[in-house]
Formats: sequence, C-alpha cells, structure tokens
Amino acid sequence: MTKRVYFFGDGVADGESAMKNLLGGKGANLAEMSRLGIPVPAGFTITTDVCTEFYEAGEKFPAALEAEVFENLRKVEAVMGAKFGDPGNPLLVSVRSGARASMPGMMDTILNLGLNDTTAKGLIASTGNERFVYDAYRRFVAMFSDVVFGIGKEGSHNNFELILEAKKHARGVKQDIDLSAADLKEVVAEFKAFFVSRMGRAFPDDPREQLFAAVGAVFKSWGNDRAKAYRAMYNIPNEWGTACNVQAMVFGNLGDDCATGVAFTRDPASGEHRFYGEFLINAQGEDVVAGIRTPQPVSKRPGEEGPLSMAEAMPAAFGDLERIYKKLEAHYKDMQDIEFTVQRNKLWMLQTRNGKRTGFAALRIAIDMVDEGVIDQKTAVLRIDPEAVTQLLRPIFNPDDKAKAIKDGRRLAKALPAGPGAAAGKIVLTAAKAEEQVKKGEKVVLVRHETSPEDIRGMTVSEGILTARGGMTSHAAVVGRQMGKVCVVGCHELDVDYANKKITIGGKSFNEGEWLSLDGFTGEILAGEMPTSPSEVLQVLFEGRDPAGAENYQRYAKLMSWADGLRRLKVRANADQGDQAANAIKLGAQGIGLCRTEHMFFGGVKIDAMREMILAEDKAGREKALAKLLPLQRDDFAAIFREMKELPVTIRTLDPPLHEFVPHTDAEIQDLAQKTGIPAETLKAKVESLHEFNPMLGHRGCRLGVTYPEITAMQARAIIEAALDVAKEGVDVHPEIMIPLVGFKSELVDQEKVVRAEIAKVFAERGATVNYTVGTMIELPRAALTADKIAESAEFFSFGTNDLTQTCMGLSRDDSGPFLKQYIDKGVIEQDPFQTLDQEGVGQLVEIAVLKGRKTRPGMKIGICGEHGGEPNSVEFCHRTGLDYVSCSPFRIPVARLAAAQAAAREM
Amino acid sequence: MTKRVYFFGDGVADGESAMKNLLGGKGANLAEMSRLGIPVPAGFTITTDVCTEFYEAGEKFPAALEAEVFENLRKVEAVMGAKFGDPGNPLLVSVRSGARASMPGMMDTILNLGLNDTTAKGLIASTGNERFVYDAYRRFVAMFSDVVFGIGKEGSHNNFELILEAKKHARGVKQDIDLSAADLKEVVAEFKAFFVSRMGRAFPDDPREQLFAAVGAVFKSWGNDRAKAYRAMYNIPNEWGTACNVQAMVFGNLGDDCATGVAFTRDPASGEHRFYGEFLINAQGEDVVAGIRTPQPVSKRPGEEGPLSMAEAMPAAFGDLERIYKKLEAHYKDMQDIEFTVQRNKLWMLQTRNGKRTGFAALRIAIDMVDEGVIDQKTAVLRIDPEAVTQLLRPIFNPDDKAKAIKDGRRLAKALPAGPGAAAGKIVLTAAKAEEQVKKGEKVVLVRHETSPEDIRGMTVSEGILTARGGMTSHAAVVGRQMGKVCVVGCHELDVDYANKKITIGGKSFNEGEWLSLDGFTGEILAGEMPTSPSEVLQVLFEGRDPAGAENYQRYAKLMSWADGLRRLKVRANADQGDQAANAIKLGAQGIGLCRTEHMFFGGVKIDAMREMILAEDKAGREKALAKLLPLQRDDFAAIFREMKELPVTIRTLDPPLHEFVPHTDAEIQDLAQKTGIPAETLKAKVESLHEFNPMLGHRGCRLGVTYPEITAMQARAIIEAALDVAKEGVDVHPEIMIPLVGFKSELVDQEKVVRAEIAKVFAERGATVNYTVGTMIELPRAALTADKIAESAEFFSFGTNDLTQTCMGLSRDDSGPFLKQYIDKGVIEQDPFQTLDQEGVGQLVEIAVLKGRKTRPGMKIGICGEHGGEPNSVEFCHRTGLDYVSCSPFRIPVARLAAAQAAAREM
Repeated sequence: MTKRVYFFGDGVADGESAMKNLLGGKGANLAEMSRLGIPVPAGFTITTDVCTEFYEAGEKFPAALEAEVFENLRKVEAVMGAKFGDPGNPLLVSVRSGARASMPGMMDTILNLGLNDTTAKGLIASTGNERFVYDAYRRFVAMFSDVVFGIGKEGSHNNFELILEAKKHARGVKQDIDLSAADLKEVVAEFKAFFVSRMGRAFPDDPREQLFAAVGAVFKSWGNDRAKAYRAMYNIPNEWGTACNVQAMVFGNLGDDCATGVAFTRDPASGEHRFYGEFLINAQGEDVVAGIRTPQPVSKRPGEEGPLSMAEAMPAAFGDLERIYKKLEAHYKDMQDIEFTVQRNKLWMLQTRNGKRTGFAALRIAIDMVDEGVIDQKTAVLRIDPEAVTQLLRPIFNPDDKAKAIKDGRRLAKALPAGPGAAAGKIVLTAAKAEEQVKKGEKVVLVRHETSPEDIRGMTVSEGILTARGGMTSHAAVVGRQMGKVCVVGCHELDVDYANKKITIGGKSFNEGEWLSLDGFTGEILAGEMPTSPSEVLQVLFEGRDPAGAENYQRYAKLMSWADGLRRLKVRANADQGDQAANAIKLGAQGIGLCRTEHMFFGGVKIDAMREMILAEDKAGREKALAKLLPLQRDDFAAIFREMKELPVTIRTLDPPLHEFVPHTDAEIQDLAQKTGIPAETLKAKVESLHEFNPMLGHRGCRLGVTYPEITAMQARAIIEAALDVAKEGVDVHPEIMIPLVGFKSELVDQEKVVRAEIAKVFAERGATVNYTVGTMIELPRAALTADKIAESAEFFSFGTNDLTQTCMGLSRDDSGPFLKQYIDKGVIEQDPFQTLDQEGVGQLVEIAVLKGRKTRPGMKIGICGEHGGEPNSVEFCHRTGLDYVSCSPFRIPVARLAAAQAAAREM
Repeated sequence: MTKRVYFFGDGVADGESAMKNLLGGKGANLAEMSRLGIPVPAGFTITTDVCTEFYEAGEKFPAALEAEVFENLRKVEAVMGAKFGDPGNPLLVSVRSGARASMPGMMDTILNLGLNDTTAKGLIASTGNERFVYDAYRRFVAMFSDVVFGIGKEGSHNNFELILEAKKHARGVKQDIDLSAADLKEVVAEFKAFFVSRMGRAFPDDPREQLFAAVGAVFKSWGNDRAKAYRAMYNIPNEWGTACNVQAMVFGNLGDDCATGVAFTRDPASGEHRFYGEFLINAQGEDVVAGIRTPQPVSKRPGEEGPLSMAEAMPAAFGDLERIYKKLEAHYKDMQDIEFTVQRNKLWMLQTRNGKRTGFAALRIAIDMVDEGVIDQKTAVLRIDPEAVTQLLRPIFNPDDKAKAIKDGRRLAKALPAGPGAAAGKIVLTAAKAEEQVKKGEKVVLVRHETSPEDIRGMTVSEGILTARGGMTSHAAVVGRQMGKVCVVGCHELDVDYANKKITIGGKSFNEGEWLSLDGFTGEILAGEMPTSPSEVLQVLFEGRDPAGAENYQRYAKLMSWADGLRRLKVRANADQGDQAANAIKLGAQGIGLCRTEHMFFGGVKIDAMREMILAEDKAGREKALAKLLPLQRDDFAAIFREMKELPVTIRTLDPPLHEFVPHTDAEIQDLAQKTGIPAETLKAKVESLHEFNPMLGHRGCRLGVTYPEITAMQARAIIEAALDVAKEGVDVHPEIMIPLVGFKSELVDQEKVVRAEIAKVFAERGATVNYTVGTMIELPRAALTADKIAESAEFFSFGTNDLTQTCMGLSRDDSGPFLKQYIDKGVIEQDPFQTLDQEGVGQLVEIAVLKGRKTRPGMKIGICGEHGGEPNSVEFCHRTGLDYVSCSPFRIPVARLAAAQAAAREM
C-alpha cells in the first residue's frame, strides 16, 4: 500500500531530511528535527505524490487518504494532549504547503484550523484567554474564506479588513489590539455573515470538513499564477507538486511569556559568523513579517545599543534556542534559516532550512566553514550558486539607499536583468548623443526601443543600457553583458519618443538629460541618481588595488583556485577587441572561443569601407573596398593575439546578413551617396535588394563567403598577417579560423580551400609560417546530423547554440519574447531556451554532433560559443557531453569556471 | 591491377551494357553492340574512374594509363587495318566523352585525330580523296585548338571561321564545298599559323601528344560550366565523372556511296511504332545536326511524298540498318536513338542509346511494348519518368507554332517552370485587375514581382502566373501548382513597373493589356498570343468527354491502373476547397493530407472578420469576430467532407503569422478603419506590433493557438459541426485535426485539450458524435528529435518537409533563391532542397521521427504533406522510410501514384 501520510513529533518521525522530494523541504526538515530530539509541534506531512494524484484525478483526493489522515491526527492528539474538534480541550492545526524547493510566500497557508463556536469555548477554557481565542478565530475565518473559497479580497478591497476597520471606528479605537474579546467575537460573527452573503451557505464549522478543504486549497495553490511565475523564474518543474503539512498550533501570543521569531545562524547579507534574527514577545509569526510592530533582535554584539535582545529578555528560552541552532547548523553543515515560537516559556521549532543569502555571504560562509573544518573544499565549491559570483564583480547600489528610493516611489518598473550591476546616468536616446555627452564628462544611460550593431560605440561609453524590446539574448543583452555593462531589457512599460526626446516609464515622463538608475541584478528601473560603489574584486583585478585588505577579492580568488583545481572543461571568452581580451585574461580565460569579426566593422572608417564593399557593383569594386578593410582588421587581430599570447584564438569569418551593415533611413543614404559619389537612388535600390523576409535564414554565414570568396580571403589574410606580425615579436600565436553557418560539408570544403589558398600566398610573400587550424560552427541541425561528413574537413567544432536553438525549435530569438513569456506563464515550457540550453531537444543535436564528429576525427577539439557557454546548467551539460571548452562573455567567465568545477565535482 | 581501358570491336568487347557506371552510356553500348556482332568501328573506353583519378591528382593521368592506352590502340590498329600515325596508311580516331547519363552536347568531342602533314599524305594515298583529307584536316585543327587550348572563339568571333570566310572571299566562292583541296590545304596552314600566333608554339603534330591532350580535354569538359549547369538541372552527381571513348574514324563523306544519319526506332514525339530519322549522303555526322543541308528521311510511310528515303537511295545499307535497329530494340527492349555512318556502302554503327521522348511517346511506347510482349507491366511502369505524366494533363502549345514564334524572336526569357502547361492571356499586374478583366471575359496572365495570399482570387481567375522573384516552392509556385495553373517564376529578366503599368522582359517593354504566352513545361515566356489546346486526359476526367476516342486518356488510365496495383504508399491531396477536393478525387486522391484553413480566410467577408479578430483589443473582441468566421469555415469544411465521402480529411489549424492577414498600405488601413470604426492610427500601431524580424520563426502555428486558444476552439468547432452535418446526410466522415509547428509535446497537449474540450461541447449540444483524431505536423527538428514524447499525445504525424527543410538547414525558402542558384552552379549542392527532399540531412530527421514515433505508438499513421510529397525521388524516400501516405497538390497526384508504384516495384 502506498504510504501517503508521514508523522513527526515527540522525538520520532516517519520521514527524514533526505526525503525532500516526497515530503517537501519543510516536511522533511520537520521530520529531521523531530528525529534529532528538537521540540517540534507534532504533525504530519501529506506527500507531493498525493498532490500529483490530486491533479491527475481532476482535483480529487485518493480514496485511501482520509483514513490515513485521521490515523495520523490521532497520533498528533496523543502527543499534544488535545483533540481535534474536542469541545473541552481542542487541538488546532496549521495547514501549510511545502515544496521540494523553497517558494516563499507563493502558496497558501491556513492557521488556527479547527475553530468553531464550540471549540472556541473549549480553547478559552484551556488557555484562559478569551481575547486571544476570538482574535485567532477571526483570523482563521478570514484566512480560510480567502484561501479555500477565494472570497474577501475583491478588487482593491479586502472585505474582512473593511469589517474590522468598521468595528474599530464604531468602538472609537485605532489599533486591532484595542478591540476587546467581545468586539472580536462580534467580528467573527460579522465575518461569517459576510461569508454567507457571498457563498449562499454557512461557514464550514466541522473541523474535519475544514481540514480537507484546507489541504485541497494548499494543493490547488501549487497551480496559482504567482506560484507558476515563481517556478518559471527559478526553473522549478511543474510536475514536482507540493506536499502539505498539518501541524499542531503553538501560540506565541498567549502573553508575555510567549514570543515568536525568525533567525539565521549566520548573517545572510554579509556571511558574518553571528546569530542574526528578530523576535516579538506576545505575537504570532505573521506579525514579525508584517512589520506592524518593530521586532527586537535575537542577540546583540557586545555593547550594542537598542531594544532588549531575546538573550536579555528571555534568557532561558534563548539558551535553548542557542543550543538548538548550533545543533542544526552542525547537523546540516550549512547556514540555517529557522522559525520558532515560545509558548509559555517553552521553545518550539517550527521550521529549519538552508538560508538564502547574497553572493557575498555565500562565499564567506562556504570559506569560513572550510576553515572551521565543517565542510571540505569540494563541498564549498558545490555550495555556491555560480550565478551568485557575478554579484562580486558588479558595482552595486547600497541596499539602504535603494530601499529608501523604493519607499519614496522612485521605482518605475521592473524588467529583465540582462547585465548585472548598478548604474546611474543621464538619459540619452541615441548612441551618438551618448558619445557626445560622455565626451563632455557626463555619465549616461542609453535608452532605446532596441539596440543594433551601430549602437556599439554608444553602448561602450554608457553606464547602463535600457531597452523596451528584446529578451535575455537580445543584442543589447548579449553585447551589454560582454562589455560588462549594466543592462535592463524588454521593459514593456517603457515608451521611447525619439522625436520629442522623451521617454515614459510606468506612466512617468522623463526628458533626455534627466537622471535614471538601473539595477541590473534585479531589473529595477529607478528615477533619479542613485550612488554606486565599484566591486572590490574588479578593483583588484583591473585597477591594481592591493589585494591585502580586500577580503571579498581574497575569498573570490580562493574559491576560484579551488574550482580550477576541480574542473576538466576549459573556459574561453567571447571577445572581439584587444581590451576585451585583456579583461578576459584577468577573469581567467584560457583562450578566445569566439571573435566576431563583424563587430570590428563598426566605427567611422571601417563602416564606410564595409558599406562600399557591400554596395560595390562587382568583384573588382568589392576587392577595392576590402583592401581598405584589410589593414584595419589586421590591427584588430594583432591586438588580440598580443593579449592572448600562447592561448588559442578562434576567429569567425563574416557572419551577419549584409543588410545589417547598410544605412536604412533616407538621410543616412543621402549621406553615403555624398561620401561615395554613387547616386542615392542606386544605393536605395541596392539596399532594398538586400532585404530578406527571414534574414536569420538568409544570405549570411558561410553563404556570404561562398558567393563572395574575396571576403573570406581578405579575412584569412588579415588573420594570418596579424599572426605573423605578432609571432615575429616572439609570441607563439594559435589562430583558429572558424567558418560559420555550415550546413553542408561542401560549404566548408569551399571556404577551407579559399582560406588555405590565401594563407599559402601570405606565407610565400612573408617567407614565414605559423600553425593554424580551420574548423566550423555547428549551429544548424543539418550540420549536427551530418557532423561525421563535416568532420572530414573541419579540424574543430564550436557549437553556436543560439542559432542551433533557433533552428532546432524554429524559434526566432528576436521575435519570441512576447509569446515565450506566455508559454512560461502557462507552463508550456519551463525556461527560456535562449537562456538555458534545451537539453531534451537541442541537446540531442549536440550529442549527435559530438559522437559523429569524433567518430570521424577521434579526439577532435569541440567547444561551445553560444550564450549558453556562461549558463551553469548548460555548462554542466557541456561537461557531461564531453566538450573541451565553453566560451562566454568575459564577465561570465568566473560563473563558467565555477559551474564547470561543480559539474566535475558532482561526477566524482 | 586496376583495368582502366576497355576494348571493343570486331565482334568482341571487354565491357558490356551493364557497365554504364564505369564505361559511360556510350562506351557500354558500343561494347554491347560489338558483342552482338553489330559492325562498330573498333575503339576503346577509358573509364569514369580514370576521370575521378584525373581530378583527384590535380588534372594528371595515372602513370599506368599510357601503356594501357597504347596496348589497346594496337588492337584497334589490328582490327581496322591501319596504324595510328602511320605515314602510309594512317588510322584516325575520334575522342568523345560519355557519362553514365546522357548529357547531349554538354561535353567536348574531337574528330579526325591523328592528322598531321605526313599522315594527311598517307590518308590521301589510302582514300584517294585529297579534298576530303584537307577538309578533315582543317576541321581537326580548328576543333583541337578550341577544345584543348580554348582558342579560336574569342568574344563573338570564331577566328577559324573568319579565316575560312576570308579564303572563300579570296576565291570568290560562297560555300565551303566550292573550296578546292589546294584551298583547304592553305586553310590548314593558316589555321596553324593562327595557332602559333596565339599559343607561341607549334601546333602539336605528334598523334600521341594529340591523343592524350584530347583525352585530358574530354575529362576537363566534365567540369565546364555548361556541363555543371546541365547536371544541376537533371540531378546528376558531380562525382560520377565521364568516360572517354577513343574510336577509329569511319567517314560518311568520301563520296556518294557514303552517308551518315541519326534515327529513332519509334517516333520520339508521338511514340508511334515506326522507324523515324534522317540521313545525308556524302556528309559527316555534324552536318546532319547543323542543318546546313536539308536531310532526307530514313524511311517514308507508304505513298509519302518528299525527298528520297534511305530505303530508296541506299537499299542495301538500309537493309542492314533495318536488321540492326530491330535487333537493338529487341535487345534493349526499349526505343533506341542510333547514329550510323555508311562508308563506301558499308554500314557502321556509332552509337545506340535509349531515346529521349515526350511524355506522350513514353506512355505509348511502354504500353505498346507490353502489348507486343516485349516488356511486362512492372517494367512499363518503371520505364516512365513520373514527371513526364504531367505533360498529359496540361494544355499545350502546338510545337510548330512555338518553333515559329521562337524563330520570329518572340521568346523573351526562360525562367523556372513551376506550373506545367501552356497559357496565353493579357498582362495584368494586380489580382484586382485580373478579376476585373476576367469578369469582362478577357483571358489574363498575372505578372507580379511575387504573389501573396491576398492575390489568391486573382490567381484563380488567371490563365497563367509569371513572377520575377521566388523559386519552385515560392507562394506563386505552390499555389499555382495546386490550382493547376500555368506558372513561371523567378524570372530575373523581368521588371514590373506597377506605377506605370508596364513590364520589361529581356529588354522589351509591354503595357498592361498586351498579350503574353507562358510555357509552363519549359519556363519560356513568349510575346503575344499563342493558341493552346486542352489536355485530352482532363477533357475526359473533368469535362466528361467520351473516353472511347481518347487514346492518350486510355493510355493514362491503363498506366495508372498498373501503378495503383503495384504501390503500397497511399496518395492524398493538399486541397482547401470543395472544388479542389473534387479535382483531387478525379486524379486519384485517397484522402486529403493537408487542408490549410488559412487559405479559406481570403475573400471579402472572411478577410474582414479575420482582420477584426486579429486587431481585436481582447479575447471578447476576438470571440465576437470568430463567431462570424465560424459558419463560413463550417460551410467550407462541409463542402470538402461531401466531396471526400468516407476518405480521411486532415485539417490543419491556423498556421501563418497573423501579420500576413492584415492590411499594410495606408489606403488599405484607412479602408479597414472605415469598415471597423477603429481609428487608423490604432490599426496602424497594431499592424506594426505584429511585425516580426523573422516571421518564419515567429508567432505562428500552434503558438497562435496556445496564446489564443479561442481560435483553435472555433476551428475545432467548425470542423466537427461540419462533420456532423455531413454525417447526417449519411456520409461516414473521417476528420483528422492537425496541429502545426509543434516543437514541444506540451504544446500539442495544450492544443489537444482545447480541441477535445470544444468538441465535447459540440457533441453535447448536438447529441451526436463522429470519430476524429488529433495529430500533429512534424516540421521542426525538435519535433522530430522528441517524436517519442510527442507521439504520447499525437494520434498521427504528418511531415511538413518545407518547414523542416527550412529549419534543418537554416535556409529561408523565400530568400535563398539567388544564392542557392550560385550554390548549384558552383556544385556546392546538387539540387534545390525545396524541390527534392534532402535525404542526407532532413531525411535523417524524418527517419528519426518515424522510428521514435512508432516506438511510442506502434503502427502510427504517418504521412508527408510538404511540397516534396509530389516529387518522385522524395516519394521513393517516403516509401523506403515506411510512411503510410504522401500528400501533394491535386495535379501532382498522378506523378506521386506513379513514383510510389516505381518505389514499390524497385523494392520487389
């Protein structure tokens, strides 16, 4: 028989902490605490499997559940010495959700369940506190009506709140606390009357009916919109379901010998090793969270001023708590987030779980625990969310400053946090304006509908970038991250009025030149100027600050050295310029995995020559323009080779459709006509002829090189001439020439021939050679499926998983934002495939290509250079699939190093 | 040791007709004729493998070749009684290409090789005909210089021709024949002097040097542009290479007891069983082809007037020829295309091969041969190119009319033959104009840059469609074929000037209203009106003509019944309307494989309601508009169900991006604003918000249904209400509801739920049910890769190979035309993947999906409904892969039936 209900309490438990999948985090930890002999109010957990059964049966309980619940309820009654529904000595219970992963506040809870007019009288008798009982009763009626029947909160009104307000008004009092027991008894009656008016039936007085209705409501709350959105955000699968915990109530609000509190075993913000938390005397748990009364600290530093601490106010209970929290941290070997209640001087533990913490705290706690001998280095590496490391690299807003700004109504909107960090600057609406203002010494935030390659120089000088369109892999996001810019994208509340030089966000208007602040960690947009502090780690790495006093840097360096000792995957950078390469090296890059040559083409002289090349009438015209580009590209490549020294540098030949480079507005075309002497009409016709319905699937990648081999030849020449120049300086350069968008082996063969022929010419001219390889991107399903053939020509593969995702799914990165959001909200997909590699689908193509490629060419070097190369889950997939390296934007390198180490550690 | 050279002659041969891959068609047949004891001038074939070796070695011969060639040359000398290079009795040879597949005129030939001043004298001695010898000599020098050294033809000048003209001018004569032996001897010297002036070296006089230079030139001609283009057109792989035949010369121009001719064993145009061909007395083979002298018929019908036939002029040689051609046809069991020469009354056979023929002739010959007991029915079915059958369905131009028109300079250009048939009409440039003119009783040809779904009604009424852009699967081509329209697309020479209502083709201008004729078999565009005749088959099938006198129809019907008896694959139609369904049934459809519901949305009331739906502010607005569409769709579906009766009908829910349905010009938007009362500005903003960068990868297919489930619900309701209506009339309807563009199982689950829920409602309302199934398109790589999961929900699969090709290759059908052409020209790919399914790449996805789908759901029904469903190679692939059916446009059904039969027959 399937066991559906797990008892805990009185030093025993059916479950344990390892059973999180079945009992949820809360249930598993309650069981574990009980087993550890820690005082926990008795209760039982209905499993996550029952939640799944419930949904599969069309929101119905399995038949056998009722008997099992009542059997366990009898055990609880025995332990707690009270009976559920008993008129004399009634047991009250709480009914709470508890999923495998913590989803704080997303699902529903009902407290004080089991109350009706009869049991209320019994509770008055057993507690001797009538006011307390009617207060609990009115809270229960409101909570139960809301959670189970969805009534009470209509529009912006909370009807129960209004009834309570009316009662206070009638009694001439201001605070709930001033209402008497009799008043609250009336309120209960009025709440129930409201229930009848809405539901056309009496409020359920039978505690058993209350119990099953509450359990059903908790299961249903797994499917509410908030919970779905939260799961989407944190990649929690919909199938997991929630468990439901039914637990005896204990009360922190029976008098001054009662209290309730929440605490962390170490500081969750800084990671400092001190007991940190808050409590309230004579209060219920929700009062601590609600912030109506100012809570007191659980403990104070020696000599610290302020309200009495729990250590001072309730020394006996605090002594118990101190003993228990230390036991729990030692047991779980991690910082704990605990909830407790003191009822008539007896301490009860209501929850323990691994505490959420900032990146700074995560690092400090992990390293401290290694120093304390609690965990080993491998565990420390596994303990830290790779994403959290980025916090150590970014400038930040002071949390107090931000909280105040939000309180002052300065938060305008929240969008996608594409580039972490904090930035403030004056609003500019064009890249040109950005450059102009920065030259004058201003700090700017570039605000656009979207950015394009032409905006790159403007983006480079901006403090932050904000766009109305696009997702986490839009141009702004990708380029912004690579530059290490603070970047917030896809802000639907943003409207940009270029003509009138103003923007509107969340209903408020700002003119160009007004201040705006962006929090790239959270995606928040704030009005006005917020001061920022630079990251300590980058001060050391980039600005030469003495590491001696820089504790965060030291911890970062220590963790990274542990990680590098564990990982097998190499980590490279996507970088297109010498300065980016220099940053990448400082952040730990072991090579460049993707140098996008087209990014080099933007900028005054280069873009003109590029346009001249594209708009040329014939091959001769193209070659003339290419001759102008050659020395410029060569210099760019040389700068990169100088920075990278003996590390490999993978350079991709021209990839984007030519249409991206040409001017589109009449004014720009006129301007180009003047520069080139070609009639504007001719230019316009040529620009129009480059238009494509689906440029992503059009004339781009190696298709350009096949039809215009002179472009490939020029690029091969520029790469090798630069390599020879730098080799002459004594550097052992390793250029890897990568052909993009290959679908057919014959395309690669064609381009390889062009590359090798041109390089042979360069070698002959120079009388010198360097080693180089020619490989290809695998970014089309056909390339993956025919990788065995392509590997006959390719010396290496690099997965372009952005394009591979687009083609495998038939999904445009630039167009899918709006409906992908709906997909995630509806639970049709669980995560944005452009952020996290779709292992089920796209992953199969990667696996096929690795298998087939290495079958033809054993030990072939294979990497990934899509945006996924810096995303932890995807990095783990790359490790599992046997790739040699991942490549990502420079500021993602530490994330990738840590993720790669974790993948290796998990495998051990 | 590899055998590289194969001897033939004197009743023996190293090779035989089965060795076409190695010896080429010509070489294999020369060997076979020799073995059959047919008089063939002795010679030898250098294999196609040597051609491959030649290219792989950088255009160098394998070392062992020379000795083997000379060894075989000695055998030829022995048989022919003359010696190569011998001053007294020299042997001359021809050097000819000969690939596996016939590529007439594409590669090079050199005749009379072995001549120099010395051997010329010897030949004069052995033939006694000095003029003949110098004529042969001057021809050889010109041909050799051109083929081996590429000189002589510069720009539009043929320098050798000019020298000859000058000589005639100097002698005061008009014709070559009037030049004397001495004149020609001078011409030879002048040709050689020209050679020296161009090449800076003497003309190669050594026969051995001549021989190897000629063989090399023949191999190189495999790689010339003409040959590549031809191979691309006929899907001949580049790897095949050509063989090279070296054969003793025989001469038809030694006097009046000599002749040369070409003939077919049956009439290649009509298929009539009679010997059909032409010959010339005292002439070389090239004279017959060149058309300088009017050739005589080889035989005449009893009592036929005209020049002497060969039977009359050379009865003895004709007797031999008659005996031989009958022997050859009986041996090869197929109509032969033969070449022969009579040298001093002795008949020599120079070539035999299966003759090319029209579709009409193919059918007649195959059926006649079955009747004659030469071949069996299966062979007859295999004998006919499935594409050729379409000729029997299309209206045609009279070949004489067309030849005259071309002679008169009325052929303007040649583009892609997208929809076969012949059409003439007055030029119209808009769909609206087409409708307007047709209402007035005019015949029109619609000429556009490209067509879009809005042009459908205009296309329906046009005789033919001509576009400047797009390929064989462009909108115009797909829709045109489905309608059975004559359609020529991608005409780069065409310029459409909408503003001035005129077009330019090949430099000539035409105004709207002038006549234009299109040959959809060949892609030719002709100025003016060409009369057309309707196809006999369609007269019987569609117009009720008595089949008794319709011989072509009878043959068609007989062949199709044989084919249907052989095939395993079912053939369905892509059809969206009742009348298309009716046509499909007449052409043999066994169901509808793809009904595109969106095609139904065009047309006055429907498009307005559709636009109202798309531009609605909210779900309520959409539902209001959908309510208008419901009865219209229901009627469309009912019409189809009535035609299809008990056959299955697969209906796809809405697929294209909504942007395709909305108006785009300001005028159209204004018009819609008036109709709907929505401000034009609002409409414009909404239309702009629908814009996508890559609509092919955007918000379309099931993604529309997931975000707007009310659309799917309406369509499901319309389908099932129609099914119930028609079921009530006593028809056993079989609707299959197909969800497009599924990439994730969850998408299909979502849509299936919507469909089944709505249908349950309809069943309840009507109190009646029908059987239906819900399945999906497999048209994304991700769907193919996860077909095992998708099959948990899908009851059937249908491959959408157009989209699957686009996504697998990352290649836009609409944008790839220009560079795909270059790809094919350069040999990077061999055929347009949108015409012929890419079995190596896309085919893997099909195989994976079939395997995985049937693993989950054994015996699952799987079909294909992309354009490939009517393409013979792709049909064969579908047969091999175990699909249940192919679906194609109605007029492709006979092609698919025949191709499916051939696939089954080949497997037997």
